[in-house]
Amino acid sequence: MRQIAVFSGTAHPELGVEICTHLGVPQYPTRVSRFANDCLEVQLQANCRERDVFLIQPLVPPVQEHLVELLLMVNAARGASAGRISVVLPHYAYARSDKKDAPRISIGGRLVADLLAAAGADRVLTMTLHSPQVHGFFGVPVDHLHALRELAAHFRVLDLSNTVVVSPDLGYVKAAAAFARRLGTPVAAGAKQRFGGDRVQISSVIGEVRGRDVIVVDDEIVKGSTVVELLGHLRELEVRSIRLACTHGLFVNGALQRLSEQEEVLEIVCTNTVPVPAEKRVPKLTVLSVAPALAEAIRRIHNGESVSALFG
Amino acid sequence: MRQIAVFSGTAHPELGVEICTHLGVPQYPTRVSRFANDCLEVQLQANCRERDVFLIQPLVPPVQEHLVELLLMVNAARGASAGRISVVLPHYAYARSDKKDAPRISIGGRLVADLLAAAGADRVLTMTLHSPQVHGFFGVPVDHLHALRELAAHFRVLDLSNTVVVSPDLGYVKAAAAFARRLGTPVAAGAKQRFGGDRVQISSVIGEVRGRDVIVVDDEIVKGSTVVELLGHLRELEVRSIRLACTHGLFVNGALQRLSEQEEVLEIVCTNTVPVPAEKRVPKLTVLSVAPALAEAIRRIHNGESVSALFG
Amino acid sequence: MRQIAVFSGTAHPELGVEICTHLGVPQYPTRVSRFANDCLEVQLQANCRERDVFLIQPLVPPVQEHLVELLLMVNAARGASAGRISVVLPHYAYARSDKKDAPRISIGGRLVADLLAAAGADRVLTMTLHSPQVHGFFGVPVDHLHALRELAAHFRVLDLSNTVVVSPDLGYVKAAAAFARRLGTPVAAGAKQRFGGDRVQISSVIGEVRGRDVIVVDDEIVKGSTVVELLGHLRELEVRSIRLACTHGLFVNGALQRLSEQEEVLEIVCTNTVPVPAEKRVPKLTVLSVAPALAEAIRRIHNGESVSALFG
Amino acid sequence: MRQIAVFSGTAHPELGVEICTHLGVPQYPTRVSRFANDCLEVQLQANCRERDVFLIQPLVPPVQEHLVELLLMVNAARGASAGRISVVLPHYAYARSDKKDAPRISIGGRLVADLLAAAGADRVLTMTLHSPQVHGFFGVPVDHLHALRELAAHFRVLDLSNTVVVSPDLGYVKAAAAFARRLGTPVAAGAKQRFGGDRVQISSVIGEVRGRDVIVVDDEIVKGSTVVELLGHLRELEVRSIRLACTHGLFVNGALQRLSEQEEVLEIVCTNTVPVPAEKRVPKLTVLSVAPALAEAIRRIHNGESVSALFG
Amino acid sequence: MRQIAVFSGTAHPELGVEICTHLGVPQYPTRVSRFANDCLEVQLQANCRERDVFLIQPLVPPVQEHLVELLLMVNAARGASAGRISVVLPHYAYARSDKKDAPRISIGGRLVADLLAAAGADRVLTMTLHSPQVHGFFGVPVDHLHALRELAAHFRVLDLSNTVVVSPDLGYVKAAAAFARRLGTPVAAGAKQRFGGDRVQISSVIGEVRGRDVIVVDDEIVKGSTVVELLGHLRELEVRSIRLACTHGLFVNGALQRLSEQEEVLEIVCTNTVPVPAEKRVPKLTVLSVAPALAEAIRRIHNGESVSALFG
Amino acid sequence: MRQIAVFSGTAHPELGVEICTHLGVPQYPTRVSRFANDCLEVQLQANCRERDVFLIQPLVPPVQEHLVELLLMVNAARGASAGRISVVLPHYAYARSDKKDAPRISIGGRLVADLLAAAGADRVLTMTLHSPQVHGFFGVPVDHLHALRELAAHFRVLDLSNTVVVSPDLGYVKAAAAFARRLGTPVAAGAKQRFGGDRVQISSVIGEVRGRDVIVVDDEIVKGSTVVELLGHLRELEVRSIRLACTHGLFVNGALQRLSEQEEVLEIVCTNTVPVPAEKRVPKLTVLSVAPALAEAIRRIHNGESVSALFG
Repeated sequence: MRQIAVFSGTAHPELGVEICTHLGVPQYPTRVSRFANDCLEVQLQANCRERDVFLIQPLVPPVQEHLVELLLMVNAARGASAGRISVVLPHYAYARSDKKDAPRISIGGRLVADLLAAAGADRVLTMTLHSPQVHGFFGVPVDHLHALRELAAHFRVLDLSNTVVVSPDLGYVKAAAAFARRLGTPVAAGAKQRFGGDRVQISSVIGEVRGRDVIVVDDEIVKGSTVVELLGHLRELEVRSIRLACTHGLFVNGALQRLSEQEEVLEIVCTNTVPVPAEKRVPKLTVLSVAPALAEAIRRIHNGESVSALFG
Repeated sequence: MRQIAVFSGTAHPELGVEICTHLGVPQYPTRVSRFANDCLEVQLQANCRERDVFLIQPLVPPVQEHLVELLLMVNAARGASAGRISVVLPHYAYARSDKKDAPRISIGGRLVADLLAAAGADRVLTMTLHSPQVHGFFGVPVDHLHALRELAAHFRVLDLSNTVVVSPDLGYVKAAAAFARRLGTPVAAGAKQRFGGDRVQISSVIGEVRGRDVIVVDDEIVKGSTVVELLGHLRELEVRSIRLACTHGLFVNGALQRLSEQEEVLEIVCTNTVPVPAEKRVPKLTVLSVAPALAEAIRRIHNGESVSALFG
Repeated sequence: MRQIAVFSGTAHPELGVEICTHLGVPQYPTRVSRFANDCLEVQLQANCRERDVFLIQPLVPPVQEHLVELLLMVNAARGASAGRISVVLPHYAYARSDKKDAPRISIGGRLVADLLAAAGADRVLTMTLHSPQVHGFFGVPVDHLHALRELAAHFRVLDLSNTVVVSPDLGYVKAAAAFARRLGTPVAAGAKQRFGGDRVQISSVIGEVRGRDVIVVDDEIVKGSTVVELLGHLRELEVRSIRLACTHGLFVNGALQRLSEQEEVLEIVCTNTVPVPAEKRVPKLTVLSVAPALAEAIRRIHNGESVSALFG
Repeated sequence: MRQIAVFSGTAHPELGVEICTHLGVPQYPTRVSRFANDCLEVQLQANCRERDVFLIQPLVPPVQEHLVELLLMVNAARGASAGRISVVLPHYAYARSDKKDAPRISIGGRLVADLLAAAGADRVLTMTLHSPQVHGFFGVPVDHLHALRELAAHFRVLDLSNTVVVSPDLGYVKAAAAFARRLGTPVAAGAKQRFGGDRVQISSVIGEVRGRDVIVVDDEIVKGSTVVELLGHLRELEVRSIRLACTHGLFVNGALQRLSEQEEVLEIVCTNTVPVPAEKRVPKLTVLSVAPALAEAIRRIHNGESVSALFG
Repeated sequence: MRQIAVFSGTAHPELGVEICTHLGVPQYPTRVSRFANDCLEVQLQANCRERDVFLIQPLVPPVQEHLVELLLMVNAARGASAGRISVVLPHYAYARSDKKDAPRISIGGRLVADLLAAAGADRVLTMTLHSPQVHGFFGVPVDHLHALRELAAHFRVLDLSNTVVVSPDLGYVKAAAAFARRLGTPVAAGAKQRFGGDRVQISSVIGEVRGRDVIVVDDEIVKGSTVVELLGHLRELEVRSIRLACTHGLFVNGALQRLSEQEEVLEIVCTNTVPVPAEKRVPKLTVLSVAPALAEAIRRIHNGESVSALFG
Repeated sequence: MRQIAVFSGTAHPELGVEICTHLGVPQYPTRVSRFANDCLEVQLQANCRERDVFLIQPLVPPVQEHLVELLLMVNAARGASAGRISVVLPHYAYARSDKKDAPRISIGGRLVADLLAAAGADRVLTMTLHSPQVHGFFGVPVDHLHALRELAAHFRVLDLSNTVVVSPDLGYVKAAAAFARRLGTPVAAGAKQRFGGDRVQISSVIGEVRGRDVIVVDDEIVKGSTVVELLGHLRELEVRSIRLACTHGLFVNGALQRLSEQEEVLEIVCTNTVPVPAEKRVPKLTVLSVAPALAEAIRRIHNGESVSALFG
């Protein structure tokens, strides 16, 4: 069997190290040089020839930098005769650019999928895509994991008898219901409505939440404005407590601080698909690791075992 | 400028004729032969060389037959040196197969997009895709129309002061709201929830409907079971009257008969993106024509004018 | 070495089972769902990841259904990370659409070859193509078997001292001569001539047939009209007995009944590349199995042994 | 409309000049340099930008040289931003390599078709392919002319009341019958049979030829050995006179001399799809020009008119 | 004829405006949005359908940002049915990453060429590539201009009787000689030699420079260290005066300041292929405009006239 | 692990035999047939199925013949289901056609790289490309060896205390310096300058050569005119002795004889990347073998070991 070779780009080296520890293989270094004219050059620092190469890089800010670096990594692996090149995208930021809702607009989710294939990627491993249709943007095989198991394990230690899971958005309610089933709780959801222009507002909360302990769950929290708006509604509905959970904790523009300052919010839980730098971390934040799950998926991909059997 | 040449397959010749009438061009015939071994052969019956060729074929049952026929039409046009080949898909049935929600499952929406490109299609004109992300499944340019203008024009003659537009599904509520804005009415929606397994049920109706005149709007009605379920809820909420509207009126398994038999249903309105055969038609049914819209889009595509400017 | 995984579509499950029995591997089931809008969805019911996947589906009527089902199977296998995808086409019906003999006509044999590649097929195993040039329509490697060995073994038990092999068509005479060599008999052929328009007629029989025991051999029998016409000529030439043999026994429009009713016809022999349903079977019919040959070819493809060495 | 630009390679410059004369356009020169290491370099000697470029080069011996030169011409035209590149192949020698009749053998006809597309050819204009299936080897549109009109016009001045057209090979009989129809004569054919190994022999002549004036017609004459063999049979059948006709008069290894020395042969007629150098020409030889036909096809391709309408 | 539509990205809008002024066409705006997750979205703000679209974006720092923005512009233009998409790259920074001089290293120049093609670019217009072989990295047609005419016009007003043109590098001497011929002066060059490791040093100056007025010419000046080293040698050789000229004036890390402080340096001349912000500009600096040349090239590309005829 | 299968074309069978001897594997024969119409057909004479196939063919004169033969070999290997196809190009003649230095000119180096990929090559092993950028012309992985080790080993037995290595061309000086470092000698170089038109002349020799023992080293010697010119300069500079060394000894137009007749030339050393026929060999000529290096590279490619580690 081909040997495995795992490289991490500069977007999230800690995650790479952790994955490699779980796999029991070395994480080979990647040299990324920036020339005076701002061009990048990548050198993978270990033999790739005929190996089963995995390149770990979440597309997190600065996204453009990390994307080009990843494309150069794929190019370098192909030129170095890798046996197979799997791109590990714990977070695929461009997945949100998934439809043409204005004339002459780019569909970044499809473009980046095509660029990865053009550079030489043979397959993709990713986590919690913003919409499941994005899977079909890739012509190469995709393994699509989610982190509901990790999130559920975290909350299952609580007394959940009075708990309800709430999706801030009706588009996410299917996944929220799957999460609720794992916890044995009911589900509810905020109903956003779009009015003239781009104004989107949560107009109501569907399902019983009054007096309950609420776990708000979403795929990602970026600026946190939807969640803040939902918190207002929940407050009006006199919920007993609030916990926030998401897979991708991007937390830009002071989102973490702002959410953490809401008194009712007891806890904020995310995973390490994207790096959460130490200076951002607040006492209420818990970061769960998806490294064991990604490592297990990589191990199964390498051995040709079913990934869906485990995580489906 | 290249000459235009419009051909229609066998899926919906009436629509082709109507489009050509609006364009003021002849509809050229397509000869489709079936050999004894059940293979098809297509001959386009007019010169295609360097022409701007449009091939009209909605993917309606028998879908497989119509799909292969369409692919052979594209193959014949390419072999005949067409200058550009635009596929006109008034209804793209495979759009519903848009995500990988089980292991080792096909994503037909992406596959068919790739097959059309492999056969030689240069662009696609389609109407009311089941999810907007399907747009990104195509590597070739897509013009994506909707029929809300036609549907709205039909209802605008009514007294709408007591009317509310209802989407049977939260996934369609954005389009329903756009439709409601065209009519100047509020919007409401049925909230489906999925429970263990595949069971999906409308659990509630969001928004004020009690005592109102309701227009239920959806992208397509196939078996009509979701709508029937919604009618039960609306009945409980004592609405005053119900009208049904959709773009794609597929109406299989006696759906049209069943819906028409509901007493509160005053009217069922669909468009002719798919053929509604005479024997299916019931007195309550009105079929609006999208031929003017498709003809105008074809004219604009042919002349290089903006399509989104008109229909966006 | 990669594990093998064999799936059969719905076109001819008995053949799949028989092949798997010879290979000593399980035949994994394929779930094919038809939605209310007539679209198909395929789920391969066993792990494909990194496996050497073989998908068995002859293109028999309904051809369009079976073709789209096969394309969806390939799409599902690719999406499920199959190591290699081999399409097993015991009968490739579209091979007859192999030239452009009219303007703006489709060349289905090339189109379907391109569609299979676009869907993700890595190689093709097929049997007795209508013309050998069709091989070149595929960009992917093709193994092209024939069934002359099976047919010859069947007839070799007879007293062949007075026998002549007759091809109904000069286009097939090369293969018929190869078949005659296997039996140690001379060969003869009906000479078709085309006159104005599409009229094709057998105008003469080349070679000595008078008073002989005749074995008519062809690649496929569909409606049987060419053979019926040949039988007339053979009758006039006072042959002693007639046996019919072909690889692909499609037998549409009552062909089997009609041929079987010809008194001089002692026997009709075909193979099971296409299913011959029980209700069609007549007492004079013998169906030989190509499953051992296909199984052996699959085994050799899987093991990287020469296929041509055996069947060439 | 794009301007036309016609270039000829070194394989047959006289034909290029003649075509351009008929088109009334200049034939632009092509500079072909050979470096000391035997590599070629091509420079097209006129502006190609956005023009409708036609590159004329029959694949005649030395075939490899002419093929690479043609590929470099296509490459140069693409690099020079040609609007469309049409390759004019009056003779496509690799068409004879059209099937895989031995293991691990190349299929040159498909390979060269792919190479032309890879180099950048947008379409192909060719004449009298060895088998019509070769058409399907090309992914790009092909216009496939034949020269039967030119050949028929030549013979129509004779008294044809006692004439029969004879195909040396059953594979060519369909085209020979079409030719005979143009002359209003019956058709006959030599029947080749293959015996053990590669031995192929004309074993009989089908149809009435005794005492007739014979016109032997074939797609191409290379070494002439099949024709010489046929002449023996015709002599035995005491034909009154023999004329030979073909599209591609390659005449290698003294074929022209040898055929011309046969007393019964009154005349040998071919076309100028391939050059027939002055030193080869014998008194009995007549070379008809296909330049008017190719020029007319080029004109129609350029103007987007139907080619099949004229030559079909 | 197709209408032209020119868009500029954010890398160098002034150049775009100037080009459009010379062309006499409007420069259409491009909307570039950055989402909270740092992804970009591009909307071209004018109709592209069937138009001849030109997208102007030099790859200058931040290179990765500008590259992804350009790819999204191409994606948007393709999705909007542009008739032809030409990418105008006044400066192609990745051209310097043009060989694999270490194992497992990326070749950015080829990768970016492939990415542009994958995104949908039909052709490229660029200026003064770092090595002419980079042209071959593109599969699409490339027009490759240089700015020697502009630079020569600037210096021709001087008394050049005592002048010598000096290339800092032997790799650039061919272009420098061409420049010298335009000025009617001799040429000389610094000879770099590489020693163990990466150390490269100018070891000598070939040709007569002592006591001369020197014009140092190069393709680009980035950090200026090679030029500074050359200045040392020239000083030792007691040249009378020094002027510096280049096409791409990137001037990072205070290069402009440092070069300007050298007393012997009378003047620094570059072009506006890359923006030189006001705050960097020093009194000794002159920036020549390539906008007229690029506009003329765009005009010729649009009209299908020869570009090389003018600038070759 | 896949079995290896090595085939050699007709360009240099001796090298193939020698490589196979070093690998300890049989060299399988290739049958190349030439038909009467000058087309080639290739049959690989051993099973390729799933094997790791290596095809050895330097592109030496007649280059066009050898190139088409190689493309047919690749086509045959692909059609025969090779597991992986590596093309071994000990000499890639078209590498010299690497830039577009005139309008409408072909870039043969890129074209041939694309043709090899189009035919089905998976990777390339080559030696001493004329410019390192040519690497980037290939989309498939390339291993690029050089022969400096072999050349250095040959000279290291001499007393090198008074020796200097001289590159005839400044473009080759980097490799010459690497060669000099292996020998522990200084380096010098002839400086070519191009004047109006194509005239190129060695105008000076940089570095100390007077009275030295000179080893002239270059990538290839074709006509030898540059070397002859350099010899004149070296003679004027009164060098003590001259030895010539190169990787590719093409030696056309009597180059070997002419160089050998120069009295000061003690020895001419090349490798067997290209065949040097017995009749060309002169007493002063030594031909070193690169077979061990190529065999080792093939072994490492087959085993997935690093090639750069050894030869980098």
